[in-house]
Amino acid sequence: MKKILNNPSDYVDEMLDGLCLAHPEYYARLGEAGRVIARAGGPRQGKVAIVSGGGSGHLPLFTGYVGDGFIDACAIGNVFAGPSIGDCVAAMRAADGGAGVLRLYGNYGGDRMNFDMAGELLELEAMETTTVLVADDIASASRAERHKRRGVAGLVYVYKIAGAKADQSGATLAEVSRVAQKAALACGSIGVALAPCVVPEARKPTFTIDDDEMEMGMGIHGEPGIWRGKLASADTMAAEMLERLCADMDIARGERVSVLINSLGAIPLEELYILYRYVARELAAKGLTVVAPLVGRYATSMEMSGASITLLQLDSELEQLLGRPANCPFWRV
Amino acid sequence: MKKILNNPSDYVDEMLDGLCLAHPEYYARLGEAGRVIARAGGPRQGKVAIVSGGGSGHLPLFTGYVGDGFIDACAIGNVFAGPSIGDCVAAMRAADGGAGVLRLYGNYGGDRMNFDMAGELLELEAMETTTVLVADDIASASRAERHKRRGVAGLVYVYKIAGAKADQSGATLAEVSRVAQKAALACGSIGVALAPCVVPEARKPTFTIDDDEMEMGMGIHGEPGIWRGKLASADTMAAEMLERLCADMDIARGERVSVLINSLGAIPLEELYILYRYVARELAAKGLTVVAPLVGRYATSMEMSGASITLLQLDSELEQLLGRPANCPFWRV
Repeated sequence: MKKILNNPSDYVDEMLDGLCLAHPEYYARLGEAGRVIARAGGPRQGKVAIVSGGGSGHLPLFTGYVGDGFIDACAIGNVFAGPSIGDCVAAMRAADGGAGVLRLYGNYGGDRMNFDMAGELLELEAMETTTVLVADDIASASRAERHKRRGVAGLVYVYKIAGAKADQSGATLAEVSRVAQKAALACGSIGVALAPCVVPEARKPTFTIDDDEMEMGMGIHGEPGIWRGKLASADTMAAEMLERLCADMDIARGERVSVLINSLGAIPLEELYILYRYVARELAAKGLTVVAPLVGRYATSMEMSGASITLLQLDSELEQLLGRPANCPFWRV
Repeated sequence: MKKILNNPSDYVDEMLDGLCLAHPEYYARLGEAGRVIARAGGPRQGKVAIVSGGGSGHLPLFTGYVGDGFIDACAIGNVFAGPSIGDCVAAMRAADGGAGVLRLYGNYGGDRMNFDMAGELLELEAMETTTVLVADDIASASRAERHKRRGVAGLVYVYKIAGAKADQSGATLAEVSRVAQKAALACGSIGVALAPCVVPEARKPTFTIDDDEMEMGMGIHGEPGIWRGKLASADTMAAEMLERLCADMDIARGERVSVLINSLGAIPLEELYILYRYVARELAAKGLTVVAPLVGRYATSMEMSGASITLLQLDSELEQLLGRPANCPFWRV
């Protein structure tokens, strides 16, 4: 597995350099070590700010979704490693427009600890903050233990919906947090892994898997899944993923959902559309209406081979916010 | 190398099914065998139509760029195989708004033969047509033999610019063709390949390459490049590609260019931004101004690993057309 890089220890900083050089109208690089990306225009006074963060290696997550109608700043760690407390603090300061800050990120232990400490530090300065965790990976724990589930591609939906709410004139931190929490609880994801990626500094694959195998439910860093077995057909794969999502989520006939077919990296658009074909027909057969489907690379693990499906159960409020205009380099609906 | 598919012989049709199910507001599937994608809204009367085509396996090329301010219809072949004459005819008929049809596609022998025959057939019916070929791959033939060069990612720029011209009220076929030809001559591309992809029906990699090797100048179907050797660093790779492009293109200090850093499939966004970082600095050092850079997957070969760099030399007309609004699921500037 080959990579295009210079010194592996410069991977993240050179990537962030390139990102900001390519999109200076969107992104500004801040923080003591340059590991904070914030809106190029600075904070919007009077708007509730949304801050996120996580490890590198998942573009467009997390950094890419800084933009109008999305998040305001993001603290970034090394590849697959959470951001530092200092960068979490810096991201919150960079985003703060005086109306409070929502910390919105995926449910991983290290990220949670650092964001919590950063929040406590800033509350001492009288900044009003809240936290909403996204824990959408249904394969990572049972529904009864939802608090143990990892956050994956569902985060993109929650960014979009919370970002649209924060954009509404007069929206309060409590309202933005309520909507973010509702969206977080309304989405479920499951992934299938076919081949690993290589973490630059480790220089070796994140896991091993035979040439004819797949792993259902594997996490985006190679966390163990539900079962490993022979590589199945696209339709068989999609059927099991959809069945598991529907069993978990209690979606009734007549409901409206959005669906995200996401490549973990190497799986091409062609194959995502082959998956979508099955999913679209199956959702229609279940009596569901699909709104604004997303097919592409939204939450990746560099060149990892695999795909995930996310379902977002909509009510009228979520659907209206999902459809609001927004602007970042990686969003198109 | 694993793929997500059902029966390999259904790969293209299932992909097109999924594409149209996901984006019904953009695409309609036409043609006897369903191998034509045209604007969902039908042809625009009085507008010069632009038709393209090529093999499958390159999404978003070619099909994905059907949209407002882009192309009007596309004839699609099997993976890496050109479209049939019948589908070329059907695409031209589907696009025709009575103001003439520009055939705009990459310079490959089979595509040229079939599009030429289709054009001759329709000219018998008094349809006015022209052809512009994009031949931007500087590694595929010398500058003196530009007519032998293959068409690669530069096609995306030419679609955008010709599409914007065709959108201008009253633009004639001659004017749209002139602008398309100017854009085609103003762009140059070069790619580097790290690992092959698998053509579904062949079930084997398109080429072999050692684990520590790269091939400079290789084509997107695995056509031989300029040299093969040890995998170099990102900056070394980018430096050679840029040097070759600048030597070929006669770009003077003070000029304005756009640049496209394109993944052939598996190379992640992170590594494209690492390449862009070098390219942006180097172009600035050469006294060039970069306009609307593109970094992402615009012209791929499924899961092939590698990247290409395209430079587009701008004059005020090309720059203005490049910046016009346009709308398809895969374009964002």
